Amino acid sequence: MEPTRERVKESTRPYLEAELGFRNHWYPALFTYELEGDEPKAVTMLGEKILIRRVDGRLCAIEDRCAHRRVQLSAKLECYTKDTVTCWYHGFTYSFRDGSLVQVLTDPECPLIGKLRVKSYPIREEQGMIFVFVGDVEPPELADDLAPGFLDPDMAIAGMRRPIVGNWRLATENGFDTTHIYIHRQSGVVTETDAVLPLGFIPQDKHSMEIVEGPSGPTGVIDKLFLNYVPIFQAPIGDVTVSAVLKENGAMVAPEVSCWVPGALKLENFPFEGYYIFEWYVAIDERTHNYFQVLGKRVQSEEERRAHQEKAHVYWKDVLWRGFNDQDLFAREWLEEAYTDGEGWSKERLYKPDMCLVEWRKLASRHNRGIQRRPLRPLDGSPAVK
Amino acid sequence: MEPTRERVKESTRPYLEAELGFRNHWYPALFTYELEGDEPKAVTMLGEKILIRRVDGRLCAIEDRCAHRRVQLSAKLECYTKDTVTCWYHGFTYSFRDGSLVQVLTDPECPLIGKLRVKSYPIREEQGMIFVFVGDVEPPELADDLAPGFLDPDMAIAGMRRPIVGNWRLATENGFDTTHIYIHRQSGVVTETDAVLPLGFIPQDKHSMEIVEGPSGPTGVIDKLFLNYVPIFQAPIGDVTVSAVLKENGAMVAPEVSCWVPGALKLENFPFEGYYIFEWYVAIDERTHNYFQVLGKRVQSEEERRAHQEKAHVYWKDVLWRGFNDQDLFAREWLEEAYTDGEGWSKERLYKPDMCLVEWRKLASRHNRGIQRRPLRPLDGSPAVK
Amino acid sequence: MEPTRERVKESTRPYLEAELGFRNHWYPALFTYELEGDEPKAVTMLGEKILIRRVDGRLCAIEDRCAHRRVQLSAKLECYTKDTVTCWYHGFTYSFRDGSLVQVLTDPECPLIGKLRVKSYPIREEQGMIFVFVGDVEPPELADDLAPGFLDPDMAIAGMRRPIVGNWRLATENGFDTTHIYIHRQSGVVTETDAVLPLGFIPQDKHSMEIVEGPSGPTGVIDKLFLNYVPIFQAPIGDVTVSAVLKENGAMVAPEVSCWVPGALKLENFPFEGYYIFEWYVAIDERTHNYFQVLGKRVQSEEERRAHQEKAHVYWKDVLWRGFNDQDLFAREWLEEAYTDGEGWSKERLYKPDMCLVEWRKLASRHNRGIQRRPLRPLDGSPAVK
Repeated sequence: MEPTRERVKESTRPYLEAELGFRNHWYPALFTYELEGDEPKAVTMLGEKILIRRVDGRLCAIEDRCAHRRVQLSAKLECYTKDTVTCWYHGFTYSFRDGSLVQVLTDPECPLIGKLRVKSYPIREEQGMIFVFVGDVEPPELADDLAPGFLDPDMAIAGMRRPIVGNWRLATENGFDTTHIYIHRQSGVVTETDAVLPLGFIPQDKHSMEIVEGPSGPTGVIDKLFLNYVPIFQAPIGDVTVSAVLKENGAMVAPEVSCWVPGALKLENFPFEGYYIFEWYVAIDERTHNYFQVLGKRVQSEEERRAHQEKAHVYWKDVLWRGFNDQDLFAREWLEEAYTDGEGWSKERLYKPDMCLVEWRKLASRHNRGIQRRPLRPLDGSPAVK
Repeated sequence: MEPTRERVKESTRPYLEAELGFRNHWYPALFTYELEGDEPKAVTMLGEKILIRRVDGRLCAIEDRCAHRRVQLSAKLECYTKDTVTCWYHGFTYSFRDGSLVQVLTDPECPLIGKLRVKSYPIREEQGMIFVFVGDVEPPELADDLAPGFLDPDMAIAGMRRPIVGNWRLATENGFDTTHIYIHRQSGVVTETDAVLPLGFIPQDKHSMEIVEGPSGPTGVIDKLFLNYVPIFQAPIGDVTVSAVLKENGAMVAPEVSCWVPGALKLENFPFEGYYIFEWYVAIDERTHNYFQVLGKRVQSEEERRAHQEKAHVYWKDVLWRGFNDQDLFAREWLEEAYTDGEGWSKERLYKPDMCLVEWRKLASRHNRGIQRRPLRPLDGSPAVK
Repeated sequence: MEPTRERVKESTRPYLEAELGFRNHWYPALFTYELEGDEPKAVTMLGEKILIRRVDGRLCAIEDRCAHRRVQLSAKLECYTKDTVTCWYHGFTYSFRDGSLVQVLTDPECPLIGKLRVKSYPIREEQGMIFVFVGDVEPPELADDLAPGFLDPDMAIAGMRRPIVGNWRLATENGFDTTHIYIHRQSGVVTETDAVLPLGFIPQDKHSMEIVEGPSGPTGVIDKLFLNYVPIFQAPIGDVTVSAVLKENGAMVAPEVSCWVPGALKLENFPFEGYYIFEWYVAIDERTHNYFQVLGKRVQSEEERRAHQEKAHVYWKDVLWRGFNDQDLFAREWLEEAYTDGEGWSKERLYKPDMCLVEWRKLASRHNRGIQRRPLRPLDGSPAVK
């Protein structure tokens, strides 16, 4: 199952090149609760500056750079009307609806009015989250870039966002990595509940990843943990035995983990039966990403939905998003040191439980809709680096 | 009037390459009041380290690096006599008069004495300012690199200097930019005086820039604002009207602005009739410049001259140099973000009022005396970057 | 004696390329007193991360990166047994004895166990110092990479270590540089003792460097100061006379200084008769080095040895290692500014007392066992830079 070093390299080349992410995909930009009233909000996605605003209830996203001298509109926001933003520098005024130049306060007869425009981004709002399509082609359905189940009507969603050190691919891989659970073995999710987490897993050759790649719909790798591996709870080092936290009648969790193009994670029945983890790692630049942490739960009423959301922000935020996942942040920072600065991509030596990562890298290399690149610098042709 | 994108690019290539400024030109280094007694003063101009000292009343400027191991002499100044500096490292002693090596304290029989020298820079003092010629050729007259009028006997000069973030070209362009006045529309110069500043200008095709390029003398672009443009005081955005600060009987100011090679700005009758702004933006390195802010005024006596200089440092310093021009610093910082780090030079989209910038870029590309470059690194041949 | 500029350049090219040091040599890593009990200690040498531990009294050094995902083991040390370290990320467990993978806690049946290994470094302990061989070939005798005399049974050794700004070559050269004594002329070693330090030296053509390069044993350049140069105590600049600190019956010190591949300095009879200075400048990365400051003294008993070591850490630490040598740190920092960032290597202009440096550069270029290089980045083939 594990391809030779050389074959892997060629089949994952697009992935290796996608330092800034894959272009022409939907990514989460904000949670709904982060966008207040008609206050514009600036975000950086895949190296692009984007300005998001709600206009008469309709979401709009335009490039956060004036077409004229490329300065960021959000450096000093000037909004004379509810559906426009005026550049603080020369008064170029853009419609939030389509990015078109509707006025130039310093030259109202400017022939560029009605002709020039800044990039307008397709934008959707679902499950209390705001998604932006970063690309140039006609956007596919939002659902095509989401993990299955996320949009289900009975799925209640709660979450938070924060900027984190580490390339987006390293963050994604840490989440999908079958055996990184080793770092969580002493977390509160394990020690303070009846959840059982093994040290790791012994891979079984007879089972394998399930690859989902249709002509449409989400594309992903599903790792059915309980079928692909045998959990391991104890292992000797010399005459010492290392053990996972052992419990009688504990609940084995997370029977299935999956990773979806362009870079979204889903865990089933984690941290407990009936719960779902959805995560995104959206490149800000080459070395940082926005980490979207989402806890989903199947509910049967709006009351249950609200109860879930309330408990998430009161209880799960501490135990899960901060406590448990902060252990992942530690791993991402040190992966970043080893990979982006160092020589990780060429010197890593994957082992068999990493077969999920190999499948993910190959799938993402086959099915991405483009590689995000920095614009070239003038004159020397080298990429402009932030 | 606006050339095609491609033609502009070729005709402004030298300007685009001049990240560190143009070589073989006169630039201001200091104000006279910054050089006390015979205390040497270190400055960085166009990436070069320079040491300035007054020797028996005569100004001298030499390279601020020992010829031996290239360390900065100013790291620890040792001056045993009034016209020499001794390197703190090995006692190499240079004459301030011509940069020649006059002694080596660690080896007084050194055959390099009298033969080796550090670069000596032509230096002039006019109007209370000290100018240094950064280059290799026989220097032209200082007046050739100054805006006309600056040296006039009846021109009283006062000013200050400070290091600012932003490439020198972006700073120069912000000053010469016809319509950047939009950022100043709420400044104290406008709200607390009877000065009138429009939002911007509608360009008129029948008039144009005046290009001054003789066989000798200053080379510059003059933008006769009142002839080239129609001022605009109000403009609608949707059903909102945006207005400049409107005043009855206000005084329209700055009928003329000009930009002079190698990078000096002049405003006539600004902030009021009879006043002149002179500005320089001298590259320190690729991302910062020394900003020279000068207010000139025609005077008829030495008493008036002193009165102007006193008022400048008491009153105009707050209102103009700090208040008004700090708005320019904001613009320069964000231009820097958009251009040097980003992709501004290749993605900018100029509009018709920028015709002054296009003329300036073309003129500077035609008439500079050389492009300042970083020395190459040994072995790999790439430029050494600070 | 001084070769032409071009010949020097070709004959010193390997030295110019060795930004990170020379590979396949012994370097000091720690003092014995820095390694407590069986606590592992992480060091960075020539850009490599290394983990050192004492196992049953035997010193061991292995790569401080997990072979799996390249993260640093020392980021969070997990040692379940006295001779292993377990990676905090996936439980890969390595033997300190040979770097072999002895267990994978997350997959105890992993076929890589017993086959995969991290690099194991040859390591020796002598004179209260721990030396590591950074390279790939069969290591030569430790003594081959040390200055003669260091290992002598009657040589008592005391010292300290600290990280310092500056490329290792600039630090080495500053120490070996015959005339850098100029910077020490006012140090306490001179003013508070009867030591005499001239301003510098006049080179004599009849004598020269002694080059030691056998088929085995240490390789070095010996500069016999009192034979190669005439000390100079006074020199005029104009009508001023600059003098060294003059003393009747003072003791001329340091008759001999030598520099040994891969980069170790030795001073004889300094700061006084019977004392020896040994120094190493071990690259951490391209811009910093670990500075090993060692004071040796010939002793005739273990009591004298202990007395020397005690006095060193009480008295010499302040006067010599901090007081005197801090003046060297200043020089290294400014050399770094001039060389690595700037253009020092191509623009320096050596003088005759630097003949020792020229000989050292040529010798090191001829006799190093390899040049340390950064691993290449994947895809673009450029070196990964820290």
